[in-house]
Amino acid sequence: MLRLPHEPAVAIVGATGAVGREMLAILEERAFPLARLRLFASQRSAGTRIAFRGHDIACESLEDAARDGTLRGIDLALFSAGKSVSKEWAPRLRDAGALVVDNSSAFRADPACPLVVPEVNPEALAAVDLPAIIANPNCSTIIALVAATPLHRALRVVRMVAATYQAASGAGAAAMAELESQAHAFAQGAPFDTRIFGRQYLFNVFSHNSAVGDDGFNEEERKLLTETRRIWADDSVRVAATCVRVPTLRAHAEALFLEFGRATSEHEIRAILAEAEREGHGLRIVDDRAANRFPEPLDAAGKDDVLVGRIRMDPSVEDGRGAALFVCGDQIRKGAALNAIQIAERFLPRGASVDANPASRCG
Amino acid sequence: MLRLPHEPAVAIVGATGAVGREMLAILEERAFPLARLRLFASQRSAGTRIAFRGHDIACESLEDAARDGTLRGIDLALFSAGKSVSKEWAPRLRDAGALVVDNSSAFRADPACPLVVPEVNPEALAAVDLPAIIANPNCSTIIALVAATPLHRALRVVRMVAATYQAASGAGAAAMAELESQAHAFAQGAPFDTRIFGRQYLFNVFSHNSAVGDDGFNEEERKLLTETRRIWADDSVRVAATCVRVPTLRAHAEALFLEFGRATSEHEIRAILAEAEREGHGLRIVDDRAANRFPEPLDAAGKDDVLVGRIRMDPSVEDGRGAALFVCGDQIRKGAALNAIQIAERFLPRGASVDANPASRCG
Repeated sequence: MLRLPHEPAVAIVGATGAVGREMLAILEERAFPLARLRLFASQRSAGTRIAFRGHDIACESLEDAARDGTLRGIDLALFSAGKSVSKEWAPRLRDAGALVVDNSSAFRADPACPLVVPEVNPEALAAVDLPAIIANPNCSTIIALVAATPLHRALRVVRMVAATYQAASGAGAAAMAELESQAHAFAQGAPFDTRIFGRQYLFNVFSHNSAVGDDGFNEEERKLLTETRRIWADDSVRVAATCVRVPTLRAHAEALFLEFGRATSEHEIRAILAEAEREGHGLRIVDDRAANRFPEPLDAAGKDDVLVGRIRMDPSVEDGRGAALFVCGDQIRKGAALNAIQIAERFLPRGASVDANPASRCG
Repeated sequence: MLRLPHEPAVAIVGATGAVGREMLAILEERAFPLARLRLFASQRSAGTRIAFRGHDIACESLEDAARDGTLRGIDLALFSAGKSVSKEWAPRLRDAGALVVDNSSAFRADPACPLVVPEVNPEALAAVDLPAIIANPNCSTIIALVAATPLHRALRVVRMVAATYQAASGAGAAAMAELESQAHAFAQGAPFDTRIFGRQYLFNVFSHNSAVGDDGFNEEERKLLTETRRIWADDSVRVAATCVRVPTLRAHAEALFLEFGRATSEHEIRAILAEAEREGHGLRIVDDRAANRFPEPLDAAGKDDVLVGRIRMDPSVEDGRGAALFVCGDQIRKGAALNAIQIAERFLPRGASVDANPASRCG
């Protein structure tokens, strides 16, 4: 595997969005080694100044940079500006020499672009020749698979049923602001701003706002199927999902019902998950039955780990082959920005160090 | 089947609660024939006056009425004051001559007390001799079964997986007030009142606040299994549920994944549900894929019908034997007060009329 330089020149494309700003925060937190940081945003936002390590960096537009011939020299480009921007610009930055980690769905089905959760399928990065485009999976898929993969490795998941409880952040910073604005409007007895979702979101839930296909599944649900199969390199796994938006801000929750290839026990499932937790596979068990304390979006928000709880056998699956879980993960962080940066870290030279567990985030 | 008198004397026990107040509203709406209405509440709330058909009725305490010997003469008692009140007082009112419809879980497993959703298993009422206690099922069970029963009758449901999105109302009026108060506190930057649930509820979801058993399932999830088996009179049906509280006020939503005893098609499933809708089985199909309009709690609130949508085959079940749905129903109404009154209506003499479709609620 080719490596990035010790102190790469890094670009964030979509720097003013919720995920872009989180990428900046995570690069700071983890002391990601970089020689230079360039921030790209839409032409409308070009000129916006954003603080990073004590400096104010002005956002540029990709169009201007292309015209000026300054797209060269970027070693690592982290994209989170939507599918159409990625489709147009990710290949151009790659062709200009960059490792692109793309958070959109543009390249997730492209066989030339590995689709990677570092705790799950790091082996998919082994054959990558730089420059390249690596695809960051869908947030719901990442959060489900951080929890389900240790069980899949040990017990082989043959079917996964998922019902999601998805936060506003998956639709961007404006959607988060709309939800908060509705709480203010409710308190003031004022009309609700419904520009993003076209409906009251506060005190409501609704089917995920992605296009519904002829089979009745929406795009988010389809991603859970196709991306799980690709990441697990297993086209036989069956996945059914119902994806639902709930009025939370930035962490997704998911009720998972797993069916395995062989009989198991709650004891074995807990042992597998506990080992994954100990070995730093990105999950933390939160499962206190007596106190009724299980994963909650507010507890997952701002954290790197996916919280895993409600661990129990599912007796509705025959022969002891079923289990149920409830998981929560920060959609902006592990569902997007953090996972992208963790992918990039795999390409840092062996001498380069990042601080994967900054004390400021412990607690 | 013995009948109530043409104009029964009716009592509501728990009249000041969210369900009790809804019972009053529904008796008015449906022009339920009654000679007299008595309202019972805790001793703390005794004396509270509540309007009904233009009269103010003072709440009494059961203890006082028992002491005064005035528990006799009640033909129909609708209970929604919690399990312990039901355990003590429902048998006393029955022994004093009343038909008791009890909304608590106290008698749901008692073979002497039918557990009934009138659209689902009215036959369970046929052998009832008055006086009697009839149990009203758990709200999540009622809402799931109104949607699933027509499919069960035609295709035999062998397994049901449910993930719930449950409203504050299931925990009572104080829980609804707590959620609303947190929106006010958020807008004002004030601390949150967390007396009921012990945590921030606004912008959060959490595992259902009922006791968790040794098998990891909480009481709400267990009810979905045991009550479904009893109502369907089918101990072979397998049910797995994850019950989750979401920050909505009064309508529950549920993602259902159904597995049938034989192969089916989306066309057949839609035909079965459409026929159930036409024949007044208490459901309404809301399924507009192009507009991304499906059941939402805010649309179900205040309505009698359970909304059914996201109707699709589940290809993760082999041989065309699976389907998925998303349903919403008003927890206070069909999940509790309405179902109880619909049970009572089955005992009215044939001449007595109720207005099951008041125009004021159409829309």
